[in-house]
Amino acid sequence: MEQQLSLFYGLSFLVAVIAFAFAAYLYLWVKRQKTTNATIQEVAVLIRQGANTFMRREYKVLAKFAAVAAVVILVLLPSPIWQGEPLKNVAMALSYIAGTVLSAIAGKIGIMVATLSNARTAEAAQKGIKPAFLIGFRGGAVMGLLVVGCSLLGVAAVLMLTGDSSILLGFSFGASSLALFAKAGGGIFTKTADVSADLTGKVELGIPEDDPRNPAVIADNVGDNVGDVAGMGADLFDSNVAAMASALVIAQSLSGDFANTSMVFCYAILGLLASILGIATARIGKNGNPTRALNSSTYVTTVIFLVLTAGATLLFEGFSWRIWGAAAVGLLVGVIIGVTTDYFTDDTKPIVQRVARASRTGPAFTVLSGISYGLISALPAMVGIAISALAAYKLCEPMGPGYAIFGISMAAVGMLSIVGMIISNDAYGPIVDNARGLAEMGGLGEETIRAADELDSAGNTVKAITKGFSIAAAGLTVISLLGAFMSEANAALAEAGRELINVFDIMSPTVFFGILIGAAIPAVFSAMLILGVDKNAQRMVKEIHRQFDDIPGLREGKEGVKPEYGKCIDIATSGAIKELIPAGLMSILATLVVGFVGGPEAIGGFLLGNIVSGLLLALFMSNSGGLWDNSKKYIEAGSEGGKGSEAHKAAVIGDTVGDPFKDTAGPSINTQITVVSLVSSLASSLFVWFSLFQ
Amino acid sequence: MEQQLSLFYGLSFLVAVIAFAFAAYLYLWVKRQKTTNATIQEVAVLIRQGANTFMRREYKVLAKFAAVAAVVILVLLPSPIWQGEPLKNVAMALSYIAGTVLSAIAGKIGIMVATLSNARTAEAAQKGIKPAFLIGFRGGAVMGLLVVGCSLLGVAAVLMLTGDSSILLGFSFGASSLALFAKAGGGIFTKTADVSADLTGKVELGIPEDDPRNPAVIADNVGDNVGDVAGMGADLFDSNVAAMASALVIAQSLSGDFANTSMVFCYAILGLLASILGIATARIGKNGNPTRALNSSTYVTTVIFLVLTAGATLLFEGFSWRIWGAAAVGLLVGVIIGVTTDYFTDDTKPIVQRVARASRTGPAFTVLSGISYGLISALPAMVGIAISALAAYKLCEPMGPGYAIFGISMAAVGMLSIVGMIISNDAYGPIVDNARGLAEMGGLGEETIRAADELDSAGNTVKAITKGFSIAAAGLTVISLLGAFMSEANAALAEAGRELINVFDIMSPTVFFGILIGAAIPAVFSAMLILGVDKNAQRMVKEIHRQFDDIPGLREGKEGVKPEYGKCIDIATSGAIKELIPAGLMSILATLVVGFVGGPEAIGGFLLGNIVSGLLLALFMSNSGGLWDNSKKYIEAGSEGGKGSEAHKAAVIGDTVGDPFKDTAGPSINTQITVVSLVSSLASSLFVWFSLFQ
Repeated sequence: MEQQLSLFYGLSFLVAVIAFAFAAYLYLWVKRQKTTNATIQEVAVLIRQGANTFMRREYKVLAKFAAVAAVVILVLLPSPIWQGEPLKNVAMALSYIAGTVLSAIAGKIGIMVATLSNARTAEAAQKGIKPAFLIGFRGGAVMGLLVVGCSLLGVAAVLMLTGDSSILLGFSFGASSLALFAKAGGGIFTKTADVSADLTGKVELGIPEDDPRNPAVIADNVGDNVGDVAGMGADLFDSNVAAMASALVIAQSLSGDFANTSMVFCYAILGLLASILGIATARIGKNGNPTRALNSSTYVTTVIFLVLTAGATLLFEGFSWRIWGAAAVGLLVGVIIGVTTDYFTDDTKPIVQRVARASRTGPAFTVLSGISYGLISALPAMVGIAISALAAYKLCEPMGPGYAIFGISMAAVGMLSIVGMIISNDAYGPIVDNARGLAEMGGLGEETIRAADELDSAGNTVKAITKGFSIAAAGLTVISLLGAFMSEANAALAEAGRELINVFDIMSPTVFFGILIGAAIPAVFSAMLILGVDKNAQRMVKEIHRQFDDIPGLREGKEGVKPEYGKCIDIATSGAIKELIPAGLMSILATLVVGFVGGPEAIGGFLLGNIVSGLLLALFMSNSGGLWDNSKKYIEAGSEGGKGSEAHKAAVIGDTVGDPFKDTAGPSINTQITVVSLVSSLASSLFVWFSLFQ
Repeated sequence: MEQQLSLFYGLSFLVAVIAFAFAAYLYLWVKRQKTTNATIQEVAVLIRQGANTFMRREYKVLAKFAAVAAVVILVLLPSPIWQGEPLKNVAMALSYIAGTVLSAIAGKIGIMVATLSNARTAEAAQKGIKPAFLIGFRGGAVMGLLVVGCSLLGVAAVLMLTGDSSILLGFSFGASSLALFAKAGGGIFTKTADVSADLTGKVELGIPEDDPRNPAVIADNVGDNVGDVAGMGADLFDSNVAAMASALVIAQSLSGDFANTSMVFCYAILGLLASILGIATARIGKNGNPTRALNSSTYVTTVIFLVLTAGATLLFEGFSWRIWGAAAVGLLVGVIIGVTTDYFTDDTKPIVQRVARASRTGPAFTVLSGISYGLISALPAMVGIAISALAAYKLCEPMGPGYAIFGISMAAVGMLSIVGMIISNDAYGPIVDNARGLAEMGGLGEETIRAADELDSAGNTVKAITKGFSIAAAGLTVISLLGAFMSEANAALAEAGRELINVFDIMSPTVFFGILIGAAIPAVFSAMLILGVDKNAQRMVKEIHRQFDDIPGLREGKEGVKPEYGKCIDIATSGAIKELIPAGLMSILATLVVGFVGGPEAIGGFLLGNIVSGLLLALFMSNSGGLWDNSKKYIEAGSEGGKGSEAHKAAVIGDTVGDPFKDTAGPSINTQITVVSLVSSLASSLFVWFSLFQ
């Protein structure tokens, strides 16, 4: 059996390298495409420089944070260095650093290729949807392949070198903590720019989106890259690593043989292979529908994955059909959540149209109806997650003690198996969004803009679905991390000669105490991020007003008059840098406070409260945001009075409220949940030794 | 010991009668005050008629619901009539009906006196704040005394007659189910009218609040009565009964002696006595501050209660200082939550001012910052509830098995002990709000309006605090109801010869399943109510526009031209009647589905999820709403550009979003939580016998 595991280590490296090679091929392919339009090139350079500046400043801050965290880890984790084995502490600190570095590299390269693809996509759009789609999609795929390759490579390397799955939690924490801040920073940047550009441009002046007169327009395009490409990439890198890590921690605690560990790697490998095949076969007809093209590659990947894993289950000794079933259930829930999200956010469905109709009566109704439907939209997804967790548990329970939780963790792994495809689709969004902006600014004409618009709208639809996907995946992962936490805490309790924890009883006041506080944290976390955007955007709006007042001819669009784009990029950058740390740090500190006050039992409750309210808020915010966005687009397409009507103005206000919901707070919450879970598992022995009550 | 209990039964009746007599005295006192202004009398009649019409139609629907529910209870609860003792079923059904009837009576009389006091308060305001305050306050006190008297009388009668505390759950369910619908119906009515009046009057036409040209102005004043007087009264009647009932259920399960049961009654009696004394001594100086007057009577009541209960603890055998401590902790948390609410919603504090400043940049920022601070405001309250539950538990744990949960229930009883005072303060609000409207419509002049404004503003501040109070009380009550549910479920399990439930383990997939679904219910519930207001208000806004277009001279305020007030009252009434059932029914049905699918364990989780997300959402919505309301008032008082500025328009939109948050959804959630908990306890034996999995 150990041989089998070695085989899978080998295959992990091999497939990761294949993914990298394929990504390199796609990168070079994209680079070969021509750009000729001078204006577009100029603007594209501005976007690239803006993105690079922000990333450099962001990573500088994050490097400092990571350095401090690495020292703390070195001294204290998995147990205080003066008590345990110092080598373990070194391994933990190194794997933490490896997690942060790989995450940063994936983000950095993703930005590189995205800011390369945008201009090329814009120019290709002159020739039609087909060539433009391919450039946008392949540019996104580079990011997808890199992220999944890095996570597979990293997890396999850490486990092979240390043989200790708990060190993996350090690696995963590295990935998550970086993701937390990158998502927060990128999310604040992008929405600061987007909101300010919309409010001053669309609402006040009535100029179109991406109008070059708008001083915030370049910052807006930079934001798409740093928020959606780098941020989302870091987020899914983190989810993927966390899902694998928690499955591996549980797998190692199960039994002597290596089959379960092998199975985790096998599923991850086949998921990556399936994604490669899905990406390679992605096509669109000459006048094809880009949304359908994106979705059908996802379905292809899903089917390939299920077939391949079924084959592996037949082929390898010790692989279980029950586990395969759990993984399949995970994927299924992903689909359910995607469909739900689609129902609530698609403008051909009734909900979006109802919100658009409500906008006729004024912005308050846009906001109220959007909030209401967003809250309702959480129900089906939460029922889906609840049923899938129950099903995976019950499926795998007969395999023996501990397998039930392993089943849940494999449901998460199954759901995330096609993550390569998901990220590709996701990174496609900001590329074509940028392309649309470039087409507008480069004056490529009505028809090209319309083609770019269609590509962009497909990106929005798919983005809503992938967001739901990553929230659900985080939900399942964190449930299994709760299991991982319990086993880590029990190991520490056993060492201390104390009574083990068998249950987290909600009637226990310590657990209940944790639950209530845990439930409040995602609320505070998301509020802090939204306030970050709110404060920042107020500053930027002021700056835009100043430019319109001070620069003669800007408002009228006089030939040759240009706004000072750089000032807006500056405001977004410094604001985001300032605000990216506090919210994440608050969550980590709250975890530590609860742990040091109430001990492991309180932390069990804390994690539960955190998951529950985190899922609720994340689903609510993401879906409300998507809903408002599309109901604005629905009105812009001519319904309920169309562009410029009172309904449109109200819808723009709704969209502005939704922007930080869906692109800053909502999708950051799942990272927050993961980070908190990992911190708890990592610090479990500290909570056992040093808690106030217990 | 049984003698001691009989003593407390007797005292309960006596003190209830004293409360009724005092209420009658105050009622007659209010009635003796003069009204002379013809316009005011005319409008007051319109308001009274509108309120009565709505109440009649609402109670007709509720009577049907209650009849159906009573039959279901008769057949099925506490156990199917063909299985158990039919007499118990009859007692349960009767006490259910008694609960609904008492709740309805309290609401009805409250409305009667409130619609009597408003005109008298308005006219008294001509002579200054002092006499007007006294009429408003005493009018409200009638409601407060009635509600608490009815609940004490009802609970004592049911328990004395049946000797079975589980029958009390039926009484409590009667009170809660009526409260659920009354709160929802009243909340939808009041906010439909308020929102529509504000949007058309303040925002579109720029006419002042309560301008008689506005067709929705009478409906708005009717709404204050049916929403805030009747709805809030039913709500607090329900909370008070539920707190007593759950404490009594647990007390009866504890030990042979009657001391604990006596103690519950004793605390309730002394609470009512303290409230009577607090009300009787309420005074205000000639130019005194009404907020301070209201708050100081609350403090007086609190101190009297603590002293009296300490005396009782010394005096009576079997009364414990630990229990006294738990009750005191409950009161303390009430204070903490009040202070928090005040910090987040008072316009002399930074938060409200920050939101006002954000309004300068547009309504999206008003909404975003209000939502953010609302989310943050949930943290201190939840920490407070968590700590108080933990403290009450730990305080009473050494008294023996079961006492820990009894401690928590007594914390809830303690918190609600001063509920008579709370309701008086609360009902004061709509009376002076109405009075302000009447002063405006009756043309009583600037100075009178200013006095009425000051009285009104005090009502708003106090209302925010009492809302936090009732949410926290519901939180603690429901925790103890969770304990009550467990003991009811175990009784049924024991009868079925099945294994008892000792813990609700969050790692159990059935419990977890319940938790996730339970957490989604308050979100869906509140969304349904908000959508009710949203839809209804859209209809009313259309009607108002129609009147302004169709009635010549109305817009210009031509002498003698009057809007058709009745049409607006009609729309609010029929809309509220249509929407008041579905949301509540959904919560009850969801509970039954989860119970019949997952059995008692799933219900345990369901209740927990429900409490946690319910508390979070209720606190968030109530506080955001209060925050927006006061930030609008802050701007109207001249800051950030004052009335008519862009900031003011944005703040009005924020307030409109906040209206259904704070007066429809937010304060209904605690009733929803209570109802769901009671349904679970009542139906526990059904879940044991007929669940799909288990």
